[in-house]
Amino acid sequence: MKALVYHGPGRHAWEQVPDATLQDDRDAIVRIDAVTICGTDLHILKGDVPTCEPGTVLGHEAVGTITAVGAGVRDRRPGDRVLISCISSCGTCAACRAGSYGQCTGGGGWILGHRINGVQAELARVPFADTSTYVLPEAVSDEDALLLADILPTSFEVGVLNGKLEPGDSLVVVGAGPIGLATILTSRLYSPADVIVIDPSASRRDAAKRLGATVTVASPEEARTALTELGHPAGADVCVEAVGIPATFEACCSLVRPGGHVANVGVHGAPVTLHLEDLWIRNVTITTGLVDTRTTARLLAMLERHQLSVHGLVTHRYGLDEMMDAYDVFGSADANDALKVALFHRG
Amino acid sequence: MKALVYHGPGRHAWEQVPDATLQDDRDAIVRIDAVTICGTDLHILKGDVPTCEPGTVLGHEAVGTITAVGAGVRDRRPGDRVLISCISSCGTCAACRAGSYGQCTGGGGWILGHRINGVQAELARVPFADTSTYVLPEAVSDEDALLLADILPTSFEVGVLNGKLEPGDSLVVVGAGPIGLATILTSRLYSPADVIVIDPSASRRDAAKRLGATVTVASPEEARTALTELGHPAGADVCVEAVGIPATFEACCSLVRPGGHVANVGVHGAPVTLHLEDLWIRNVTITTGLVDTRTTARLLAMLERHQLSVHGLVTHRYGLDEMMDAYDVFGSADANDALKVALFHRG
Amino acid sequence: MKALVYHGPGRHAWEQVPDATLQDDRDAIVRIDAVTICGTDLHILKGDVPTCEPGTVLGHEAVGTITAVGAGVRDRRPGDRVLISCISSCGTCAACRAGSYGQCTGGGGWILGHRINGVQAELARVPFADTSTYVLPEAVSDEDALLLADILPTSFEVGVLNGKLEPGDSLVVVGAGPIGLATILTSRLYSPADVIVIDPSASRRDAAKRLGATVTVASPEEARTALTELGHPAGADVCVEAVGIPATFEACCSLVRPGGHVANVGVHGAPVTLHLEDLWIRNVTITTGLVDTRTTARLLAMLERHQLSVHGLVTHRYGLDEMMDAYDVFGSADANDALKVALFHRG
Amino acid sequence: MKALVYHGPGRHAWEQVPDATLQDDRDAIVRIDAVTICGTDLHILKGDVPTCEPGTVLGHEAVGTITAVGAGVRDRRPGDRVLISCISSCGTCAACRAGSYGQCTGGGGWILGHRINGVQAELARVPFADTSTYVLPEAVSDEDALLLADILPTSFEVGVLNGKLEPGDSLVVVGAGPIGLATILTSRLYSPADVIVIDPSASRRDAAKRLGATVTVASPEEARTALTELGHPAGADVCVEAVGIPATFEACCSLVRPGGHVANVGVHGAPVTLHLEDLWIRNVTITTGLVDTRTTARLLAMLERHQLSVHGLVTHRYGLDEMMDAYDVFGSADANDALKVALFHRG
Repeated sequence: MKALVYHGPGRHAWEQVPDATLQDDRDAIVRIDAVTICGTDLHILKGDVPTCEPGTVLGHEAVGTITAVGAGVRDRRPGDRVLISCISSCGTCAACRAGSYGQCTGGGGWILGHRINGVQAELARVPFADTSTYVLPEAVSDEDALLLADILPTSFEVGVLNGKLEPGDSLVVVGAGPIGLATILTSRLYSPADVIVIDPSASRRDAAKRLGATVTVASPEEARTALTELGHPAGADVCVEAVGIPATFEACCSLVRPGGHVANVGVHGAPVTLHLEDLWIRNVTITTGLVDTRTTARLLAMLERHQLSVHGLVTHRYGLDEMMDAYDVFGSADANDALKVALFHRG
Repeated sequence: MKALVYHGPGRHAWEQVPDATLQDDRDAIVRIDAVTICGTDLHILKGDVPTCEPGTVLGHEAVGTITAVGAGVRDRRPGDRVLISCISSCGTCAACRAGSYGQCTGGGGWILGHRINGVQAELARVPFADTSTYVLPEAVSDEDALLLADILPTSFEVGVLNGKLEPGDSLVVVGAGPIGLATILTSRLYSPADVIVIDPSASRRDAAKRLGATVTVASPEEARTALTELGHPAGADVCVEAVGIPATFEACCSLVRPGGHVANVGVHGAPVTLHLEDLWIRNVTITTGLVDTRTTARLLAMLERHQLSVHGLVTHRYGLDEMMDAYDVFGSADANDALKVALFHRG
Repeated sequence: MKALVYHGPGRHAWEQVPDATLQDDRDAIVRIDAVTICGTDLHILKGDVPTCEPGTVLGHEAVGTITAVGAGVRDRRPGDRVLISCISSCGTCAACRAGSYGQCTGGGGWILGHRINGVQAELARVPFADTSTYVLPEAVSDEDALLLADILPTSFEVGVLNGKLEPGDSLVVVGAGPIGLATILTSRLYSPADVIVIDPSASRRDAAKRLGATVTVASPEEARTALTELGHPAGADVCVEAVGIPATFEACCSLVRPGGHVANVGVHGAPVTLHLEDLWIRNVTITTGLVDTRTTARLLAMLERHQLSVHGLVTHRYGLDEMMDAYDVFGSADANDALKVALFHRG
Repeated sequence: MKALVYHGPGRHAWEQVPDATLQDDRDAIVRIDAVTICGTDLHILKGDVPTCEPGTVLGHEAVGTITAVGAGVRDRRPGDRVLISCISSCGTCAACRAGSYGQCTGGGGWILGHRINGVQAELARVPFADTSTYVLPEAVSDEDALLLADILPTSFEVGVLNGKLEPGDSLVVVGAGPIGLATILTSRLYSPADVIVIDPSASRRDAAKRLGATVTVASPEEARTALTELGHPAGADVCVEAVGIPATFEACCSLVRPGGHVANVGVHGAPVTLHLEDLWIRNVTITTGLVDTRTTARLLAMLERHQLSVHGLVTHRYGLDEMMDAYDVFGSADANDALKVALFHRG
């Protein structure tokens, strides 16, 4: 089969590798029908994720059709069209029993395209298939379902729910890349009054506007002004960090009101400065998190019912064999006005 | 009357000042029967709290007897023996209406001995008397009640409750000064399994042991070892910061388990480094806060019923006129084996 | 002044009474600009509320202009255009301090038009004016504001929030009178997937459809069928009772799924049968409640921002002097296709 | 093997039956070392549980040693000494994924000794062994562990946690049988101020006193008096129903304060009357529930650490072969001063 293999910092190739095969009786083999590239894959390519070893097939967001299952798989069978979640869950460890699948200690967590081969391939081995895939209803397209593999549950759980957003709240989203945009989309389920989005890129601000931002600005200073004009001089109720660098996290901490929440979603590679000399007295709650995907089934049902629209998040489409082109475009997303890229098996 | 006046960094005196008088019709004048000194008062003396201007009478923890009330005071009258809370609450602003008295925007919050004259004096003016004092039952002594003015509600609300401590949890308390010790005391209301206390001072570790710590250690490294030996190699469920310097906050962040809570109680004067490159994936919740004193009435009832013992927290006792001596001893608390000092009106 | 006086079961009159006057220094006198009639007023007229004595002026939902304030009122002044809340709150009792204004033990709670004279009058005395009225922004009309005096916060707090509605949930609302309709409106702030409304009246089902119901049916049996067809054979996540008779409460208990919530909003005059022989094993939560109005300010802000539309709830409009006609029409609301009636001061 | 077989209402026998055998590859076979009888078993014998068919081996609370496991069992092996939970959990259905094991729709829930053969036998088949048993530490005796099979997690989850008990609360427990007594024990983890226990039996009131009740009374009227004397004239913060008849549930509803919680733990066979004409305005929360056993591991750790004492709950001990005698004694528990009876395999 063909797959996108990581060969160490700066090196990757779409190349022939041995077919994925069953290794544990809870595994499924899935023919990949649609797959996307995550900002985290770019981090790996830069060498930021040392736990991912050269030789690994990348990718953790896909939709496909099951071709084989191990003897211990009970609720999936060949022919099932499934969403492959970015999080694998063993289902029996204490973390999984408590709903914290992202923190699975039984061999799951974020392993696909990280600690084991991933889904940017013609075939993929998916561990714990019963508890790590979702059978897709016909009404949901491959392309839409793809957004449920990571960015919708991540932005909803780690951003909106951790941030404890409530109807009528003011929300600041820092960063209008795919995660920031998905935060805007899923935040609307809780009816915030103001959704202020900060991004230096004009095209991303436009995308934010289209997806529901009420105000878009280029800098934290402008966000501060906007908050004051909107009647929130003390700051926003909730700030979601959707970039992953110190400046954006620190912007969140400076824009949150006393008693408010900062929900970090971004993947960080460096420490940040926390101004406790200001914050100690301000009753602030800061959360971090890897997604658990415990809301995936619910989001899928809302997608099926057209309660949640993901229209506009996928901007570029390719065949699987065009994987290297897709990486190039996504690697310069801003220059290409790219949000999510989707690659499809073209039978 | 005599009072302890702040005269700028490094300068304070117990001196004659004009008597406290009613200025607003919701004020009460209270004759101070017992008062204590807070670590925050020492911060002010060092010049760390620029919002406190020279000329201010310090002190925000006292018990006294009301001598006069304004026309708008309804539920307090001369002769009432009351606890003066460190937090004043107007009762009508949005923050007070929501129970966030510490964030009062109607003229309250932490104002006593900070923005207005405080309670280290023979007489004190207490604003919003109806909603900022507590009538004391006879069974509660002045000395015990004194601990309810600040340290018990602060450690309970900002430490234990913000930390979401649950029965059977492992708890790390960093710092065994008065706030850390009060955290140990109030944590026991939630039956943690392990209470591991870190303090470099042997005498404070002894005090921690007496008040309920199950393990005491001198450094974060030893705490890490203790957690592993106790069966918590992934870290503690809850870490409470009770010092207020970068090293102790960073210790909390390094000792908390994935999914755990760091509750900051300490008053910080400098920024800290937050290792988001490790924490982004660990589902950590970090909280800060000024006390709201919304649990003061409940803690007072428990004190009255002997459900909560504060025995051992007050180590030194003085007459009001010995204020300068008390400051000297408390200023070198560790050398003097001092925890809380109490000063009493000696008729 | 003229006022609607209750003269015992079945007897009421719009008649001359002495002008409302200040009795406590926290009172305000308000000239009524707009007022409405509540289903509870009809209960009083039937004699169902013995705590309301003959001679009482009825009414607890109004908008008006302050004409005088007591010496203890600080944040309201003559000329202020205010919403009068159905709940009066003293602001200092333990219940008020905890945000449970409806359970005020300091002389407030539901007293207007119940234990003291109410607001169906040309003038009204409003106790605890600082903490029981809301200054209205210009952009909110009297008619719209009127709906915030009771039915919007009641349906939101006692129905939607007590029911713990979440995005994607299935919601059953039993009864499409004003409270049931307001439940539909405010439920949408939490993006339920299905809103199934039960009412035997075709015109009320039409109103429910207009305000956001996704399915309307005439009976609990039809609701059961609808739930099954919508993919919820085990029942609804949340059921809100908005009528106040045994049959409708029992319908809620039979339609809720295991683990779901029944939120009672209706005012009941008789006991109901609770089928614990079925429910003991089903993890059901049942809540009751009088509104606290702690969300009134937030709902007002959403109304001002056009985030919440109340269009269509008021069906009939009158002058204050047409009070008896308005009672007649509202008393036969179904025959008259009436939802809320509004009466206006016509200068 | 020998087992206790239900032969229809009023008829049961300790008799020879075919040995338990593996039927599903997630099953384990367990040699029973210790087992107890539950009040629910008596309900079955009376014919109150029609879902339990004649021919079923009863019992759902046991400790034993695994003798065989199916091919799909991963974390248990022959020789493991395990607690068998009253709740079986498939681990993969939506309910189990959400932590609601008691509502398992994948073939689990309360099935042992109910829908399939139970554990009052020499051998038992335990489905879903990985997610339905707990490996026991050496330090925990069979007898103590037995109490974790049902009554400790049931009283803690369905009583104490559902009741949202907090430090300093007043708690009323109605019924001092094994579940009521376990409620007293586990309530202490949250440090209630007052634990008032109602039971007409003097010997059970004595047991309640020994286990931590602060006041014991014989009737709801006496409980009302006690609450008033203790300073709670408005009622108790939390009332736990631990009997399962209408009178005791109604007592809870009459003794709870406005804003309080009624947590039903009892197994009911008949409807109750709910006085909504009083309760609609009182902000009461009523919960029901079958245990999920999500706290079993935590309670086990506390038992191992001697944080939780169960001393005194087991009053009578037998050999397995004395099963019929044990049923006789437990069937007249009050006359025999019996609380829990334990039966042991005597090699």
